[in-house]
Amino acid sequence: MHIADLETPVPVVDMERMEANIARLQTYLDQYEIANRPHIKTHKIPEIARMQIEAGAIGITCQKVSEAEVMADAGFDDIFIPYNIIGGSKLQRLMGLAARLRVSVTADSAFTLRGLSKAAQQAGLTLSVLIECDTGAKRCGVQSHQQAAELARLIGSLPGLHFGGLMTYPTNEHLDGFVRETRSLLQGDGLPIERVSGGGTPCMWEAHTHPELTEHRAGIYVYGDRLTLRSGAVTLDTCALRIFATVVSRPTPERGILDAGSKTLSSDLHGLDGHGYICEYPEAKIYALSEEHGHVDFSACARKPEIGERVSIIPNHCCTVTSLFDQMIGARRDQVEVIWQIPARSTVT
Amino acid sequence: MHIADLETPVPVVDMERMEANIARLQTYLDQYEIANRPHIKTHKIPEIARMQIEAGAIGITCQKVSEAEVMADAGFDDIFIPYNIIGGSKLQRLMGLAARLRVSVTADSAFTLRGLSKAAQQAGLTLSVLIECDTGAKRCGVQSHQQAAELARLIGSLPGLHFGGLMTYPTNEHLDGFVRETRSLLQGDGLPIERVSGGGTPCMWEAHTHPELTEHRAGIYVYGDRLTLRSGAVTLDTCALRIFATVVSRPTPERGILDAGSKTLSSDLHGLDGHGYICEYPEAKIYALSEEHGHVDFSACARKPEIGERVSIIPNHCCTVTSLFDQMIGARRDQVEVIWQIPARSTVT
Repeated sequence: MHIADLETPVPVVDMERMEANIARLQTYLDQYEIANRPHIKTHKIPEIARMQIEAGAIGITCQKVSEAEVMADAGFDDIFIPYNIIGGSKLQRLMGLAARLRVSVTADSAFTLRGLSKAAQQAGLTLSVLIECDTGAKRCGVQSHQQAAELARLIGSLPGLHFGGLMTYPTNEHLDGFVRETRSLLQGDGLPIERVSGGGTPCMWEAHTHPELTEHRAGIYVYGDRLTLRSGAVTLDTCALRIFATVVSRPTPERGILDAGSKTLSSDLHGLDGHGYICEYPEAKIYALSEEHGHVDFSACARKPEIGERVSIIPNHCCTVTSLFDQMIGARRDQVEVIWQIPARSTVT
Repeated sequence: MHIADLETPVPVVDMERMEANIARLQTYLDQYEIANRPHIKTHKIPEIARMQIEAGAIGITCQKVSEAEVMADAGFDDIFIPYNIIGGSKLQRLMGLAARLRVSVTADSAFTLRGLSKAAQQAGLTLSVLIECDTGAKRCGVQSHQQAAELARLIGSLPGLHFGGLMTYPTNEHLDGFVRETRSLLQGDGLPIERVSGGGTPCMWEAHTHPELTEHRAGIYVYGDRLTLRSGAVTLDTCALRIFATVVSRPTPERGILDAGSKTLSSDLHGLDGHGYICEYPEAKIYALSEEHGHVDFSACARKPEIGERVSIIPNHCCTVTSLFDQMIGARRDQVEVIWQIPARSTVT
């Protein structure tokens, strides 16, 4: 089937571009001997994760236990969950995974570590835990190398845990100093920093400038989106994901309404102007979203679309689009090649 | 099971509050003899739609054909889809529905009408079509009563179509004048305006102030959210939906991180300050969302949460939350009473 015959709104991945994106990052990281551990939150599709592993990734990254369970069921055997996993039943599920495959996680507090230790001890397992470090993103993470060293020592003292190294997001200019200072504090503790895990697609081509980095977690690089276009890490020609939509109304000469709204494109803005890039109308602005309508100002476009015309949109943030669809279309030269289910998409647990 | 034992993040509906919300709007609309046609895009759950019908709703509203198909399969027999339905296969699916039950749709262009007419004619059906009128929302809709009358006459002239009336969103001060002026233009055309369908939860309690209104479509009223709290149409005590989340990190004295991010709460802002209302910490601000993290500033709170503490969040916009979950929990007096599947949630087609 030609992609022009698909009902809209529909997300379509260009297979050739995605394959090239997967190969390009792998080649780059291989060149600098940095392990590639792609983040599957972007696509949540086991078949795409398999392509990443076959290209040379050492394992995958999942953002939550339920994602990891889906990937474990699909046969992946090395999964990193860079998250503070808290709560009895979720820790039990984590240990269920750790009993089947190589699992590592992160923590940034004694609270999280004590919960992990107790659960691992009860399960008779040893879990590898990295300390999450806040190197400026102001999300989770210890605030100083002193705190990092302190928690590393706590890991060393707690049963069922193994100190796996340091993790941060995104990789930035503070990373190397943070690692060195933490290492210096841990001198003589018998706690080597085995892994230094950084992440992010916008910064992926600078991974080699961080001598301390041992592995990189990029997610978006497989698809590309407006966020990563802004960063310069991807180009229009390498963006593999597009949302096809139909112009369903032209109420005024300037305004057009698409059948793709916040339940298709998501409302993620992250400082971007508008809610997506319309490839056929680069000057157009998706100035607002209703749930099933995209509101577009075509006033800057020399040619304006007719009702019924199809357009393709590069979304602001492809990862949040993934959570809104049950299926993803893979197309090669505009012919549908595969329809993937997105089994890890639900937020429930 | 007590709701405190559910893994987070998880959406929970308080059944008593939702039942009261359903009854309250029905009683109000009954009092003024306005038909109630609730919009199921908010919940996408047939069982809740059934509660709305049993309370007295004359039918339901769906925003897309796929939602209507799910509801048709669940036995609903009067479905309004206020949307310009365009494209061969989608029109075929629409006719599949129209052959099974009472379906009405909207249009705001000759293009949409000609597509509907052709499909209805081929299916040997007569489809009721309302003209969508833009009364100031600047989304879809004809821009003037002259255009409305013109399209009404086109409906009258096209095979397979029946002029069903006028529709707008949201109901506002321009509605009655628009209807009267259109009716005046249609004098002598044999095209009575049978239905005048307005919509919106924020404006629901003003429905009776519009003498021309014959039916009202409200969606959010069953759950409530921050958008409708802002409007004054619902109160904290009537909000039935909360997202339970866990504090997974307290990196600094002021900052807390929740396990609910943009893939749980959605990024819908609509001018609101922050990404949700934390019931236990009303002064806190969810100032940013990552995909699986909510970033909270607790600096204005006298007491600040510990890691591992659970909080409940009223989301900005409950309708977009629905599209991020496979299941919804219904609880009565904090005990889980039912787990609903959300079968109409996917955006695909």
